[in-house]
Amino acid sequence: MMNSKEKLYVIKIGGNVIDDDRRLTEFLRDFSALQGKKILVHGGGKLATKLAAELQIPQHMVDGRRITDAETLKIITMVYAGYINKNIVVLLQSNGTNAIGLCGADASMIRAHRRISNNIDYGFVGDIDEVNHDFINSLLQLNLTLVVAPVTHDQHGQLLNTNADTIAQSIATSLSGYYYVELVYTFEKPGVLLDVDDETSVIPSLNPEQYAAYRDQQKIFAGMIPKIDNAFAAIGAGVHKVIIGKAEALHNLTSGNGGTTICHE
Amino acid sequence: MMNSKEKLYVIKIGGNVIDDDRRLTEFLRDFSALQGKKILVHGGGKLATKLAAELQIPQHMVDGRRITDAETLKIITMVYAGYINKNIVVLLQSNGTNAIGLCGADASMIRAHRRISNNIDYGFVGDIDEVNHDFINSLLQLNLTLVVAPVTHDQHGQLLNTNADTIAQSIATSLSGYYYVELVYTFEKPGVLLDVDDETSVIPSLNPEQYAAYRDQQKIFAGMIPKIDNAFAAIGAGVHKVIIGKAEALHNLTSGNGGTTICHE
Repeated sequence: MMNSKEKLYVIKIGGNVIDDDRRLTEFLRDFSALQGKKILVHGGGKLATKLAAELQIPQHMVDGRRITDAETLKIITMVYAGYINKNIVVLLQSNGTNAIGLCGADASMIRAHRRISNNIDYGFVGDIDEVNHDFINSLLQLNLTLVVAPVTHDQHGQLLNTNADTIAQSIATSLSGYYYVELVYTFEKPGVLLDVDDETSVIPSLNPEQYAAYRDQQKIFAGMIPKIDNAFAAIGAGVHKVIIGKAEALHNLTSGNGGTTICHE
Repeated sequence: MMNSKEKLYVIKIGGNVIDDDRRLTEFLRDFSALQGKKILVHGGGKLATKLAAELQIPQHMVDGRRITDAETLKIITMVYAGYINKNIVVLLQSNGTNAIGLCGADASMIRAHRRISNNIDYGFVGDIDEVNHDFINSLLQLNLTLVVAPVTHDQHGQLLNTNADTIAQSIATSLSGYYYVELVYTFEKPGVLLDVDDETSVIPSLNPEQYAAYRDQQKIFAGMIPKIDNAFAAIGAGVHKVIIGKAEALHNLTSGNGGTTICHE
């Protein structure tokens, strides 16, 4: 049910869009055409890995996860908060969207702490403590469109690398007091699929009961479960709906004609 | 004469501070201690040149000026608008200064056009057309301290490399309608010197008559003349005073106890 608050889109794009100039340009054109208040959260893509290889900076993995050491953080700061962020901003500006590119350190927008988990030191990886929603709302009230890089800080002088999906979820949740928030996660599939090999098998909508039923029947691909759990967590924390689908289908996703919509009812 | 407007400092730092971690940290501590509204404009430093060398990107010079080709612009965007900008922001945040890092594309803060001069193509170098002073003032009214990277855009999707001194001057001038603006240029000398080899020979203040007299007597080092001419241009365009001196002496420069002050009277 639509309430009286103004709508806000929080949209996340990942490497599959960022790494492809043509797809990025087309996506940003569609994003610009979307009316209303909006925030774009971007991930990293392959450029950081490519740059690390060119600079011969070794990448360390522990338990299948990349460790963000000081040199890797430097590259992430350059590529995510610099190159990718400003290129998205300048393309949006050319489309008439008044975009502003920020990372979590700017105006202390996203404060985090360094992750220490199960005695594994992931390096300069940050888990979010707080989103400065007042500041974000101030910019939205100036009719600015925020473009957010997945870099946060600890308020003690340390930048941190933070997952872009988590940033999108935290921002969406923190603004749900001001806005009717729709959180859109784009990825390489057209939505949550009943058959992972059949792109036409998209489940159009999922409420908690339907999700429980599909899980009981083991009809949902295991790799999707954390994404869907996060979506329900966002819903539980005040986000109105979460939509999952392909970036190319942004118009359909936001008009209710594509992707998987996750909501209460 | 002090007028009733609130004071705004626009302070420019260059490579001699940025390239030295200890000096940068100390400068940012002094900058944080400075009361009132303020904007920090930073240049580039050696990191971009070093990165270009490591990536084996050749640097082209024409008439002693570096040409900003597409690959060099990419590095400038990464290093200036990413690494340097966000590192200054995160250090200021740890000092309790609520800083926000931006380049000229953000919120179309600085619109420029590509320089074509005397049939020399300097590449992606931008000369400033317009500063969005309303937007800058909106952020200052939120008690934010702006940290500005020397990257602008043309509103048609192109980022451009723009001289940081010129950015500082344009921002200072554009805000002189709202604020009593003091523009501080830091460089490697303690001020304008009567004897370029004697650091104690600082000229404390220069008004147009004094400047004309010193120039007639050929007492001012030729290399300083463009800097001083730019300072007088800023004064002519509404900036209250321009102060030139060492970054280490920021407290003295802003309290009238050091450097060279350039003003009307």
